[in-house]
Amino acid sequence: MTFQTVILQGHIIDSLILAKVLDTIVMLGGTFTLSEVTVGTKREDLSHATIRIEAPTPELLQEILKTIQPHGAVVETEQDCTVVPAPVDGILPGDFYASSHLSTQIRWEENWIEVPQPEMDLSIVVKTTPFSVHMVPMGAVKKGDLVVTGRKGIRVFPLERPKERDVFGFMEAQVSSERPHRPIIADVAKRMKTIQQQRKEGKGSGKVLLAGGPAIIHSGGREALAWIIEAGYIHVLFCGNALAAHDMEAGLYGTSLGYNLGMGRSVPHGHEHHLRTINRVRALGSIRQAIESGVIKEGIMAACIRQGVQMVLAGTIRDDGPLPDVITDSIQAQATMRAAIPGVELALLVASTLHAVATGNLLPASVPTVCVDINPAVPTKLSDRGSFQAVGLVMDSSSFLSELARELGWEG
Amino acid sequence: MTFQTVILQGHIIDSLILAKVLDTIVMLGGTFTLSEVTVGTKREDLSHATIRIEAPTPELLQEILKTIQPHGAVVETEQDCTVVPAPVDGILPGDFYASSHLSTQIRWEENWIEVPQPEMDLSIVVKTTPFSVHMVPMGAVKKGDLVVTGRKGIRVFPLERPKERDVFGFMEAQVSSERPHRPIIADVAKRMKTIQQQRKEGKGSGKVLLAGGPAIIHSGGREALAWIIEAGYIHVLFCGNALAAHDMEAGLYGTSLGYNLGMGRSVPHGHEHHLRTINRVRALGSIRQAIESGVIKEGIMAACIRQGVQMVLAGTIRDDGPLPDVITDSIQAQATMRAAIPGVELALLVASTLHAVATGNLLPASVPTVCVDINPAVPTKLSDRGSFQAVGLVMDSSSFLSELARELGWEG
Amino acid sequence: MTFQTVILQGHIIDSLILAKVLDTIVMLGGTFTLSEVTVGTKREDLSHATIRIEAPTPELLQEILKTIQPHGAVVETEQDCTVVPAPVDGILPGDFYASSHLSTQIRWEENWIEVPQPEMDLSIVVKTTPFSVHMVPMGAVKKGDLVVTGRKGIRVFPLERPKERDVFGFMEAQVSSERPHRPIIADVAKRMKTIQQQRKEGKGSGKVLLAGGPAIIHSGGREALAWIIEAGYIHVLFCGNALAAHDMEAGLYGTSLGYNLGMGRSVPHGHEHHLRTINRVRALGSIRQAIESGVIKEGIMAACIRQGVQMVLAGTIRDDGPLPDVITDSIQAQATMRAAIPGVELALLVASTLHAVATGNLLPASVPTVCVDINPAVPTKLSDRGSFQAVGLVMDSSSFLSELARELGWEG
Amino acid sequence: MTFQTVILQGHIIDSLILAKVLDTIVMLGGTFTLSEVTVGTKREDLSHATIRIEAPTPELLQEILKTIQPHGAVVETEQDCTVVPAPVDGILPGDFYASSHLSTQIRWEENWIEVPQPEMDLSIVVKTTPFSVHMVPMGAVKKGDLVVTGRKGIRVFPLERPKERDVFGFMEAQVSSERPHRPIIADVAKRMKTIQQQRKEGKGSGKVLLAGGPAIIHSGGREALAWIIEAGYIHVLFCGNALAAHDMEAGLYGTSLGYNLGMGRSVPHGHEHHLRTINRVRALGSIRQAIESGVIKEGIMAACIRQGVQMVLAGTIRDDGPLPDVITDSIQAQATMRAAIPGVELALLVASTLHAVATGNLLPASVPTVCVDINPAVPTKLSDRGSFQAVGLVMDSSSFLSELARELGWEG
Repeated sequence: MTFQTVILQGHIIDSLILAKVLDTIVMLGGTFTLSEVTVGTKREDLSHATIRIEAPTPELLQEILKTIQPHGAVVETEQDCTVVPAPVDGILPGDFYASSHLSTQIRWEENWIEVPQPEMDLSIVVKTTPFSVHMVPMGAVKKGDLVVTGRKGIRVFPLERPKERDVFGFMEAQVSSERPHRPIIADVAKRMKTIQQQRKEGKGSGKVLLAGGPAIIHSGGREALAWIIEAGYIHVLFCGNALAAHDMEAGLYGTSLGYNLGMGRSVPHGHEHHLRTINRVRALGSIRQAIESGVIKEGIMAACIRQGVQMVLAGTIRDDGPLPDVITDSIQAQATMRAAIPGVELALLVASTLHAVATGNLLPASVPTVCVDINPAVPTKLSDRGSFQAVGLVMDSSSFLSELARELGWEG
Repeated sequence: MTFQTVILQGHIIDSLILAKVLDTIVMLGGTFTLSEVTVGTKREDLSHATIRIEAPTPELLQEILKTIQPHGAVVETEQDCTVVPAPVDGILPGDFYASSHLSTQIRWEENWIEVPQPEMDLSIVVKTTPFSVHMVPMGAVKKGDLVVTGRKGIRVFPLERPKERDVFGFMEAQVSSERPHRPIIADVAKRMKTIQQQRKEGKGSGKVLLAGGPAIIHSGGREALAWIIEAGYIHVLFCGNALAAHDMEAGLYGTSLGYNLGMGRSVPHGHEHHLRTINRVRALGSIRQAIESGVIKEGIMAACIRQGVQMVLAGTIRDDGPLPDVITDSIQAQATMRAAIPGVELALLVASTLHAVATGNLLPASVPTVCVDINPAVPTKLSDRGSFQAVGLVMDSSSFLSELARELGWEG
Repeated sequence: MTFQTVILQGHIIDSLILAKVLDTIVMLGGTFTLSEVTVGTKREDLSHATIRIEAPTPELLQEILKTIQPHGAVVETEQDCTVVPAPVDGILPGDFYASSHLSTQIRWEENWIEVPQPEMDLSIVVKTTPFSVHMVPMGAVKKGDLVVTGRKGIRVFPLERPKERDVFGFMEAQVSSERPHRPIIADVAKRMKTIQQQRKEGKGSGKVLLAGGPAIIHSGGREALAWIIEAGYIHVLFCGNALAAHDMEAGLYGTSLGYNLGMGRSVPHGHEHHLRTINRVRALGSIRQAIESGVIKEGIMAACIRQGVQMVLAGTIRDDGPLPDVITDSIQAQATMRAAIPGVELALLVASTLHAVATGNLLPASVPTVCVDINPAVPTKLSDRGSFQAVGLVMDSSSFLSELARELGWEG
Repeated sequence: MTFQTVILQGHIIDSLILAKVLDTIVMLGGTFTLSEVTVGTKREDLSHATIRIEAPTPELLQEILKTIQPHGAVVETEQDCTVVPAPVDGILPGDFYASSHLSTQIRWEENWIEVPQPEMDLSIVVKTTPFSVHMVPMGAVKKGDLVVTGRKGIRVFPLERPKERDVFGFMEAQVSSERPHRPIIADVAKRMKTIQQQRKEGKGSGKVLLAGGPAIIHSGGREALAWIIEAGYIHVLFCGNALAAHDMEAGLYGTSLGYNLGMGRSVPHGHEHHLRTINRVRALGSIRQAIESGVIKEGIMAACIRQGVQMVLAGTIRDDGPLPDVITDSIQAQATMRAAIPGVELALLVASTLHAVATGNLLPASVPTVCVDINPAVPTKLSDRGSFQAVGLVMDSSSFLSELARELGWEG
């Protein structure tokens, strides 16, 4: 019988982490003694538990330790993390540590050091002179970069429940179309107002990110979203060629994918409209030119340009054209999106599986995130891919945006 | 080679019936000559085509004639329909004619006679002294009733496109969540206003039917629907125990299925609320009593009672309680629903597969019908079961009802 | 500051109940001391925790106690439960205790007594001479029945994880279409084989229940399901008029809802087939007659009759006919279903929202349950309504049944 | 009153084109006389109709002519098409003709000339010395290219129904989960066998294209698809980084997205597996290297390499890594996909909205296409974007591939 004492700390009660760790130990065939439990008596207090784990063999003990590590269990006899140089540009050492999007620290020369801007599925690279640590995508690692390996000297912290007693503070599974949307939307609106207020008062520079798909335009949500942007509530927009093209198609022709938004039916030759729109914007040189020249007068793109919203348009193999602003290289587009993440304090993922998952991949778990889709499988998919923090809202994007805009003061 | 000449008439162009009939003939191995085609030159004109069908064998010719009959193709050498007495109560003669919900005529003593209130999947029963003809459900047929059999002397007419150039006049496949909802909802609202206006002016007594499920309450659509009813826009309500129970639960406890509608989360012991609600209404004796005694002050049930809306509550095996107003026998409930259909000029089927299909079964094809569900499979299912006239709208019921209420003047 | 000491016992670790209770106390504004925690060191051991709860006011303390009671927290100073006579037939006393489908005990004359056959949303009725206790639906309570009220002297036990290390032992959220179905289906098949083996050896009389909808027939699952039943793996069938009618329609005409199952397309006048089928079975008097007379030779109904499967056919307002075996009164149908539940050791809820929810309502939480539907919202709906134990499987019913049959030895 | 005579020819009856054109004329306010209708009396015969259209104003007449042109209506007074040089690289002249994926001809020097490899939403570019005509994407047009403009001298032909009397010959709306899959899958298998047979006998070089998403791996369809490929039934594979990575993850670790495919549950640190897989293949240099070096022994990638299947891996912003074979530039990836289309005689679009729509964009309408997804909205989306020829099959990809493999002889 071998044993090891580990320490769990953080929000281990309200995140159910303590319970999951104890369960895991027993499930895998170990036993445990809870030698010390200090539970925070207020919600914001940290809790602390010392657990002595026993197992019949050293192998099983290692298996248990490996399994509970991602929950934040730290072996008491602390050791520094290990690093190995990357053998080639873009290739990680075999035993690289794959990051989580939870708050993460590495132990370096006996100090625990926070890794900034956590993101899932990256490597952790240490620079020594001067010391710095970063999460780095596989493809961006350079030969010789010191990459953290194994699991020693790394700790992650369970997600802290936000202080606000709003929808993000309850983290109930929301992937049900049979839930009232209004309270969730009201909470989202409240956070958007707070962020805007803080920016106006110079007390903060938090950003609201919207990642969206063309169904926003097709289903009739253009007007509401344009209002929200014009009113200054959105600071970063992630989308593709289609959302931008159909937004401007609606501006030029009143249609989206050839479907007249006002009359509610297809118009003859309507499928050409987005092509003519793209061709025209290409001729003008950029979306900014299309707006500033007055060719496109209103809509989402116009609002973004006027409000200085940071836009990242990522290309896909579905694209016609594409518009001149589209970043057609997916890795470059991803890097541009990644660079826009710091400072995001609220993320709205609306009606696009691709953009929802791609953005979910980039967000720290601590960013309150809402995923809106008419298909309940989309929020599930996001959660399957690790973005468990996202609150799922099953409704059509147009209704969501209209309701959100109204909560923010729209009278449309 | 044998041949037969048939006549097609009605809206055979805009319903694409002529094309389908010609295609069917060729598909089955026959050939045809279009000996005469008189096409209406205005939309409201009837068209007329005489088609000579040739087939290599008499059997194939019969097969072709049988196949094209439901499209309204009438053999030129007209004959009266045949009738056979029902052998036993509730049992039809083996060769009974199964009705369609399209406009139907039978030929009786050389006259074509309209069968009133067409409904799919019924039998046609003739009474001779005095002469009358009705569609009758299998279970309601009495021994000796004269039941129409075979296909001779029966003609059905393709669905006429409504004169209004609104969503019901285009009949495009609408089962896409990527369509703008607003124009459809605007057209629905316009029809509701027209019906109400005509009733007020004594020029009509058309009714608007809403068949709905409890997701209306769960998803937060109660307030909007109650407003629509209070404003006099609904005249018949089909629902089950759950919609009524959760509506009154919301009135008494602010919850639906134990989920607080205002706060957006489950409350402790909330799952008991609908049971306590049902128990209380049972003690009071009826929904009417619950409203009139002041126990329930607002909501959908209260609005229905106050506005004199005809309510049919049909029981199912999911029911708790049930409420005293629920008709627990499904055949009796169906008969009560059927009796409420005449006069319906607009049907809204909202967030209930069961009620949508059951109501679709009862409606003539000529009644403009909208099926609203967040699941695109529900409108498809309705169409698979014959209610092809229903326009599908893929969105959550709460957003639909809010938008509809706003179009009608709500300021919520 | 007031306090109360409560005891939690049962599978409080692996069910995460301890964590949830502690979290709830802190959330509501109380504090706690874990004065004693005895955690089972093997999976089958019970755990035990003594928690001292403190709250600033007696009202808050009561609120906390009320909130944690459904998790199984029992106040240490134990008291008997209270009972109040039902005032009228079918009406419960105002403060009636609404049951859960978890294992439940009441304290009566200082003894804890198990309430047999737990089911959600019922009342608990005590008979005194001789003593017995039962869960009773609201509508079946008689005037004077002693109904348990309040929350004192009642305890419920967290769901115990099954000993089998199969899919039911992990209880991960399975409502994802992106999960491999095969291991789940293999586990289901294994349980079916075990139950059959035990029945054959006279060691058990466990039953497998299948509740299903007509999509089983429409989507082509008839042959596989009939094989499973013929092989003796199903003992109880819950369905409606449609499943039975379309099964026999397929037997007589090769179609389901008029769609030829072999050719994969609609056949002319096919929509009449189910009506002719129903009419014919009505004329014969019963499904049993239809099978025994040789009119229907194979299929699901034939297999059920031949294998002595208990069938409950519940009527709905969608029904044509209906078949003579259909119980048209929903409360009577529900009672017949309830009577068939004792002994069920595995429940398969396939392609019917109505039957899935209705059956989920009747099942104890301890019965392993799988809910199969192509729409991920159906398992979610089931879970929203309390049947959290159900494993959701998002796939079409025909593929599920074929795969299951193959696991059981089918070679189709 | 002005008039114009137009000619419709092709499969105008079975495609319902005649009916739609007549309906459109009347809808827009015109009238017509069918001066001549020659209907093919066998299915393969072409039909021919001469229609005299009258309208009150020349503007309306033009509007009608414009609206019916995409259906193939050709103005009798035939004129050559017009061309205008592209003003700049990548920019089309303002009035460019946007192509359809139906068979298309242009009239050039009084001859009708077929445009090869029709694809929707491209421009048509004419080269004069020597004469050739091609469809060209907007971005690939060069300054000075002669681009067809307007609508004169262009005709498109209604889709011809395939001669085979299989599922592709009926073109019924199949987007219903309540349809039997087996006949459709059997028809697909039959075509695959025919194509393989013809290739083996040197009578043809038709290709089968599969475009798929990673849900194929997640849901357990890997083994079946690998078998199908090994058996030589697939010749082109379109996918992304994820399908390839998870396929090889399954080979190395037995998991997909960290979920053990055999046990049906998540494994500790499983989310790292695909990263380790990608890193390893990057180190090896290519997927081919990973297979040929024996690191990856079986699965979809291994089968493709061994069978010489043409693979196009297109990058997206969701990608980790990516694998070395991924084309990260979306326009280059699209062009590579486009180059693989000629010769495709059957397209299977499986469990990927992105790849389904992107591939649908590239396919001529004449290629029989099946779109398989568990979400009925995906086939609808495809159809909304113009790929109306695709037969929708609502089921999970794993069940589809297993069933298809069994039809082709698999015994798994």
